[in-house]
Amino acid sequence: MGTIYTYHQLLSFAESIFLKIGCSESDAKIAAQSLLIADLRGVDSHGVARLSGYVRLWEVNRINANPFIKIIHETPSTGVIDGDSGLGLVVAPFAMNVAIEKAKQFGSGWISVQNSNHFGIAGQFAMMALDHEMIGIAMTNASALVAPTFSKERMLGTNPIAVAVPAGAEPAFVADFATTTAANGKLEILQRKNEQVPDGWVQDKAGLSSNDAHELKKGGSLLPLGGNREHSSHKGYMLGSIVDIFSGVLSGANFGPWVPPFPAYVPMPENLPGKGIGHFFGAMRIDAFGPSENFKKNMDLWIRRFRSAAPVSTDQPVIVPGDPEREIEKYRLENGIELLTEVAEDLIALGNKFAVNL
Amino acid sequence: MGTIYTYHQLLSFAESIFLKIGCSESDAKIAAQSLLIADLRGVDSHGVARLSGYVRLWEVNRINANPFIKIIHETPSTGVIDGDSGLGLVVAPFAMNVAIEKAKQFGSGWISVQNSNHFGIAGQFAMMALDHEMIGIAMTNASALVAPTFSKERMLGTNPIAVAVPAGAEPAFVADFATTTAANGKLEILQRKNEQVPDGWVQDKAGLSSNDAHELKKGGSLLPLGGNREHSSHKGYMLGSIVDIFSGVLSGANFGPWVPPFPAYVPMPENLPGKGIGHFFGAMRIDAFGPSENFKKNMDLWIRRFRSAAPVSTDQPVIVPGDPEREIEKYRLENGIELLTEVAEDLIALGNKFAVNL
Repeated sequence: MGTIYTYHQLLSFAESIFLKIGCSESDAKIAAQSLLIADLRGVDSHGVARLSGYVRLWEVNRINANPFIKIIHETPSTGVIDGDSGLGLVVAPFAMNVAIEKAKQFGSGWISVQNSNHFGIAGQFAMMALDHEMIGIAMTNASALVAPTFSKERMLGTNPIAVAVPAGAEPAFVADFATTTAANGKLEILQRKNEQVPDGWVQDKAGLSSNDAHELKKGGSLLPLGGNREHSSHKGYMLGSIVDIFSGVLSGANFGPWVPPFPAYVPMPENLPGKGIGHFFGAMRIDAFGPSENFKKNMDLWIRRFRSAAPVSTDQPVIVPGDPEREIEKYRLENGIELLTEVAEDLIALGNKFAVNL
Repeated sequence: MGTIYTYHQLLSFAESIFLKIGCSESDAKIAAQSLLIADLRGVDSHGVARLSGYVRLWEVNRINANPFIKIIHETPSTGVIDGDSGLGLVVAPFAMNVAIEKAKQFGSGWISVQNSNHFGIAGQFAMMALDHEMIGIAMTNASALVAPTFSKERMLGTNPIAVAVPAGAEPAFVADFATTTAANGKLEILQRKNEQVPDGWVQDKAGLSSNDAHELKKGGSLLPLGGNREHSSHKGYMLGSIVDIFSGVLSGANFGPWVPPFPAYVPMPENLPGKGIGHFFGAMRIDAFGPSENFKKNMDLWIRRFRSAAPVSTDQPVIVPGDPEREIEKYRLENGIELLTEVAEDLIALGNKFAVNL
């Protein structure tokens, strides 16, 4: 039960709000498009549903609507960017473009970012590389909700990894995933339905396995991909740690339990070792590893072979990463984006505050 | 129940065997050290236990003991290396050294490798970067044992990822893990004990969940990290796919179900799209992202903070990746390496064949 809006209605609304908080015209457009990519691709938790959250961060001076984003350290193939507390939605594409420029010149480009904020979905920045016939990589740290294996303490964010790989005739391979068993968005769906979560998704504040979808509000934590030791949760913990180190330690951003929280009402951690939250981006030209026609031909073969792998059930063919999101995007561009009633109401209230109609 | 050998006994034995099959003195030393690193670090499945497997591959002309390893394509920060069917144990350190040299000059270096063979444990090559104050990355594809989510067909290898990160006063962070719920080695341990495996490790040839440790011999498959759809096995599938694409498609090696098998008696797949198996290596100078002293100080802080994260049980503190392997290495250097009786017997038989005493 929700309300359906067109892509352009929501895009225009988000753009107007970003303009109202003082973003430049080009930044407002970039930020709005970035949010809408999440809605189009079906990652509803990271789209316009978060718009009022960004505004609240701006209200408490944790987001700078007019950042001076700059490169503060670089080599031919690497660099660090200071996001000047800007919207991650604006800082991240700036940084990814620097990675792409370095890849054009030197084969690959690798950028770590400090002093940024939440950047929406990681996949969109990895996908920026595709138009340049490059492989794109994007990751970010986030405020701590995840306990390492053997711990009951929240030490890592859901720290996603995205990798986009161009193909020839086939659409691109696009992987984009949190390094936890379940992303927070999946938990929220079960919370609304008042259903239990499966084993291996969350634990309670004592570190015991739990099926309560509301466990995070009670001091519990999300579990790393794997879920428990027997199912190799230490691998999810290692993946989340790698994302944290590349995004936070390498850039001079905060890391581990010090990463600033997204909700503006949650107090900031104390004794911060760095600035803001951190991201990490990579771009590699496919022709930096051989003729691009060979790569595209073999990538098409890879995709077709995996899509035709013998299925367990004929009802459900094997999926290539990126397929489901592309289908949702096509559907929502044609049929509109359905927002949950509470999300639509929240946006209407936000619009009223800034005299913008949804 | 096994036999204990010293590090130097096993090293010298492996070196002698590699010399006997025609490796140069330096290659024999490199290959032997590479195998022994696995034994020292407790990854018994990838150490001298595999020595006779490598020899059998040489006997069927699938390993070239005197390869001409060369760079066949490059840019300042990237390159492709042709391993000329050499031992992966020799091709991989060559490639990692090229990545390190590129990182010295251009900030980072990224090398994809074709026409190679099994390279032992990935972590050892990632760790080569540590002496140069670099972050090291290593991955490899391998012959198909793993079914993608929704599939009953073996399409991917256990495709490991290793990342080594230097610190200051603390020992390095070293992550090294297969992208499956359980590595093959863990399955073998339960096979020997005649015990069942937990849910989420393997499935039978119809794609149904199984607890039979011998399932792989019956046409079943390993499961990607996550284990099943509800626990996000699609993330393990994506990770394994990324390793396959970076190692196989990018380099011009084989990929997916076409990756050549390690056991010499298993027939080669048909219609190979590439050459041999593929690896991927990366090196990033830490001072390519800012002053190295800052990085080391913050990495020490990261390690100490994670090691002191609140444990679920006081019996088991939180572990930083690399800690357990470093402890085993220290123990085994002092107390020797215990080989299973069947492994020791296999090595003695191998030694008899080549007139080398263990």
